[in-house]
Amino acid sequence: MPKRVDHEERRRQIAEALWRVASTRGIDKVGLREIAAEAGMSLGQLQHYFSGKDALLVFALEHIGQLASRRIQDRIAQAYPDTPPTPRQVLDQCVRGMLPLDEKSRTGVMVQAAYFTRAIRDARLRAVAQQGIPSLRELFATMLRQGIARGEVDATRDPDAEAMLLIAMIDGLNSYVLLEVQTAEQALALADHHLDRLFSGRG
Amino acid sequence: MPKRVDHEERRRQIAEALWRVASTRGIDKVGLREIAAEAGMSLGQLQHYFSGKDALLVFALEHIGQLASRRIQDRIAQAYPDTPPTPRQVLDQCVRGMLPLDEKSRTGVMVQAAYFTRAIRDARLRAVAQQGIPSLRELFATMLRQGIARGEVDATRDPDAEAMLLIAMIDGLNSYVLLEVQTAEQALALADHHLDRLFSGRG
Repeated sequence: MPKRVDHEERRRQIAEALWRVASTRGIDKVGLREIAAEAGMSLGQLQHYFSGKDALLVFALEHIGQLASRRIQDRIAQAYPDTPPTPRQVLDQCVRGMLPLDEKSRTGVMVQAAYFTRAIRDARLRAVAQQGIPSLRELFATMLRQGIARGEVDATRDPDAEAMLLIAMIDGLNSYVLLEVQTAEQALALADHHLDRLFSGRG
Repeated sequence: MPKRVDHEERRRQIAEALWRVASTRGIDKVGLREIAAEAGMSLGQLQHYFSGKDALLVFALEHIGQLASRRIQDRIAQAYPDTPPTPRQVLDQCVRGMLPLDEKSRTGVMVQAAYFTRAIRDARLRAVAQQGIPSLRELFATMLRQGIARGEVDATRDPDAEAMLLIAMIDGLNSYVLLEVQTAEQALALADHHLDRLFSGRG
């Protein structure tokens, strides 16, 4: 292993080792020694970066949230390099970035699901898990307000309520994909169906 | 302990002991010995009813699904003892039965959340977790079809798609209640908002 790896980069590598182990075995069962082995280092080396499992879990959850957010921003930048996207196009890219349609986002969704039950019982993890939702809701609500201003979304719609319902819907659809009740493509078709209705200009 | 307790009743008592322990400590961490202690019996006695933890987990998940279903049926029967409920009234009771608005349904939602991440990795639990969704979707779709026939739901709505979106939405809202992003009452207000729109007769 190279000696002079950037500290933050090494922390991210450890977080990613945690995800790989946790997504197959569950977060509760995984020990620091196993995560260190997966990251190709000793337990002592890992403890240089994280004081314990709780600190690692919190960092890894923050990191996966940032990765998901960046993945969506990249999708939007790549899909619309020249002209600014419409509100519907932004929402389309967000929905596609949130659903487990490829291996990277599938890992992200799996890891967030693995965190979910632990966060219910753990106030520190819960605080991190809560962080992403208000900013996503605000982005969605802003897109819906712009849709109303453009006459694409019916003016009687409540942007804040519809934004929260949309996020909840995608999270619920994601859980059914992980439970193999439906495929990610079926989940996407349902989400598109809902967005078509929202952006039909009808009530 | 009385010697002649009905076998199935004893199995249900053990399942309920599992839930109490699992909802505070997580399913993965809980051992059979601990569950036996919570149920007020020895490990040997518990093993008379379940061959191992997997068999207990599967039974307990089936049992909690049945309890949730019965709770909703009871709600409907109590709310409308004389006249048959309208489709909207049935959906209202289902939504209220699914959200963690009281202690019993909160326990149910907590336990199902605790199962969720384990079911992603465990095919037997996943099979049980999958069972409830198609029947619930069919009930919701039937109510929406009746709503269309009564002119309460716009005829251009797709009952199957709307039913799946509604279930996903409630599951997503439930997870935000458990993460303390919102209260159960706020989740109910959002679900009602969505149902009002569906049953407004508008597109």
